[in-house]
Amino acid sequence: MSSTIYLDYNATTPLHPTVESAIKKGLSHFGNPSSLHHLGQSAQEDIESARESIAQFIGAKSPEHLFFTGSATESNNWVLKSAVSQALLEEKSPHIITSSIEHTSIISTCNQLEKEGVQVTYLPVDENGRINMEAYSKAITTSTSLVSIMAANNETGTIQPLSQLSDLAKFNGVRFHSDAVQYVGKVPLNVSDIGLDTLSLSAHKLYGPKGIGCLYCADETWLTPLLRGGSHERSLRAGTQNTLGIIGFSSAINWWKQNQEKEIAHMAKIKEHLIKKIKSLSTPVQIYSPKESLPNTLLVSFDNISGSAIMMSLDLEGICVSTGSACSTGSVEPSHVLLEMGLSTKEALSAVRLSWGHATTNSSIDQLINSLSQLLPRLSITSKKA
Amino acid sequence: MSSTIYLDYNATTPLHPTVESAIKKGLSHFGNPSSLHHLGQSAQEDIESARESIAQFIGAKSPEHLFFTGSATESNNWVLKSAVSQALLEEKSPHIITSSIEHTSIISTCNQLEKEGVQVTYLPVDENGRINMEAYSKAITTSTSLVSIMAANNETGTIQPLSQLSDLAKFNGVRFHSDAVQYVGKVPLNVSDIGLDTLSLSAHKLYGPKGIGCLYCADETWLTPLLRGGSHERSLRAGTQNTLGIIGFSSAINWWKQNQEKEIAHMAKIKEHLIKKIKSLSTPVQIYSPKESLPNTLLVSFDNISGSAIMMSLDLEGICVSTGSACSTGSVEPSHVLLEMGLSTKEALSAVRLSWGHATTNSSIDQLINSLSQLLPRLSITSKKA
Repeated sequence: MSSTIYLDYNATTPLHPTVESAIKKGLSHFGNPSSLHHLGQSAQEDIESARESIAQFIGAKSPEHLFFTGSATESNNWVLKSAVSQALLEEKSPHIITSSIEHTSIISTCNQLEKEGVQVTYLPVDENGRINMEAYSKAITTSTSLVSIMAANNETGTIQPLSQLSDLAKFNGVRFHSDAVQYVGKVPLNVSDIGLDTLSLSAHKLYGPKGIGCLYCADETWLTPLLRGGSHERSLRAGTQNTLGIIGFSSAINWWKQNQEKEIAHMAKIKEHLIKKIKSLSTPVQIYSPKESLPNTLLVSFDNISGSAIMMSLDLEGICVSTGSACSTGSVEPSHVLLEMGLSTKEALSAVRLSWGHATTNSSIDQLINSLSQLLPRLSITSKKA
Repeated sequence: MSSTIYLDYNATTPLHPTVESAIKKGLSHFGNPSSLHHLGQSAQEDIESARESIAQFIGAKSPEHLFFTGSATESNNWVLKSAVSQALLEEKSPHIITSSIEHTSIISTCNQLEKEGVQVTYLPVDENGRINMEAYSKAITTSTSLVSIMAANNETGTIQPLSQLSDLAKFNGVRFHSDAVQYVGKVPLNVSDIGLDTLSLSAHKLYGPKGIGCLYCADETWLTPLLRGGSHERSLRAGTQNTLGIIGFSSAINWWKQNQEKEIAHMAKIKEHLIKKIKSLSTPVQIYSPKESLPNTLLVSFDNISGSAIMMSLDLEGICVSTGSACSTGSVEPSHVLLEMGLSTKEALSAVRLSWGHATTNSSIDQLINSLSQLLPRLSITSKKA
């Protein structure tokens, strides 16, 4: 559908045209990177070149600190389980500190670890979705196994003070992990400067393909393999690498390297335009835009109108938005992130998430606003009758 | 390199042209399958259509019995760990029976599980690489948690008597898993007829892309998620699905559905031609071709000539072969499979694996033989001097 207006970049992004070209070219690079003949070695070169590009982009000191995985979900599972294994190896009682607004891949894994006897602290957040630093200071001890805090939230775009959070972990000699899936690209980052221990990334939020992620790890000696088998990824993550996905990931990152500043400015301009236009609507609206938030994300809610109704109505007009985290859209539960920020269930169910990227123009926003201006009065009446 | 002769299909396969086309078309299907708008639902349809194709091809009773993973390695890790979790849940002492010639994803995981207190029996094989049935009968009890035997070996092509192996497990009320990565496609299979409980598959051995696999499971109630997070794959395998990989997997399987019989016949003819030609060489050769073996695989060794030397020399002429499992080619250790079959270290280090597929012709084989006839006498002299 060529007329589709896609405003759901935080769920996943369209491939950038340069990524499409790279994947098309890569279709013939079919060697198994573990094979020693020239076709295998050529595939291995594709992988190592990608590793170098990504390492440079995030400021890793060496490409060796990057491990390719199938998703950021896998990277997150891997880090949490490794931290527990390491604590047990050191005959310590495992204790993980995370936040109450993490992605489900962190929350679900922590919930399971709790069942297995791990102590988990879920830090509360303020009305902007920022970590409560007092609670964090109280929770952390020198015996804590890992702190895992997302860099930016997928639903609200709230950015956490990474350096400050990491510094407190460092001060206590505790490893600091960040799920940075929504953050990388949209905010300049240097993992070495901040002193992050581990970081999860996913290509498909960065105009790359789905099914390929990576884990940055400054010192891999404490990692325990989650997938065992061949000696891929320095024997820490088995399974023949997703070469085509890695080629796409690399191409996406190379695009960001050259265009990040311009792209961030573009996103910020769209946000400015969107906020102005949203405010011009006659239907009362609440805009959740914390001062420290992603330039590509805006969460809004219209009084007494269900977010799902808006999402579905817009979809009929070819406009894609989300009501919350894509990973939990199968359910009708209100977003745990919004509830943790203090919204009522009703308010949380009214939320609509707008997120954009390279292919979004002011005209896309104008078409959204035009549709909303027609839809909202109708939906408002329906909701009053209900 | 257009003149490359690729005879390493068991390591990985070139994409079939129809798969290439499907992936190119799929580049624009970028929606997140968890999103509820039309782009998300369209991606979800791609996935469900793939699930249905694969289910039909292997004879699963329902597409719901298939779960997409990032690799067969992941599928194998998942099944083994699930069997242990299930045993512990039932307050039983976990016991896994496998073979000594499995893929490293099974062997390494079992080795690790042993360290964690799981009892593992590694069944011996005969000189053809077939499971020793007597040892199997003795090892299995009604308390065994899982039997995991590969359907066909990646190095020798040896096919195991799946029905017979599965029946004995069934008779003891024990679940039966098979790593069927090398088997599916090359041998007709119906998982329901055989009564397999679980089966691992990988697209990249079937002319599909790398980074996408699946797990067939007849009754998923005993599976424990290995990757936790969103509700993907019926909440049993979290992580945004690799949609492009799944589109490629589906396309590959649809090709096999239409061409399997013809393709098997093609492979068998190539094998016949290859054996005849190999025998015509003047250098003494040993051919390992068990009666029950894959139509696309042949392991050979030339007396006193290192397999690595042959592999590297052929590579210089643009001919890709392997000395053993691609997943362990980084090391110079002799293949554990061949040692288990009774070969000496020297014999095992002489092995060269030839494997072929849809793009292989008799002329490819003739070029291989032509190169070998020139190389072998030279390598033979070098080895005598050493």
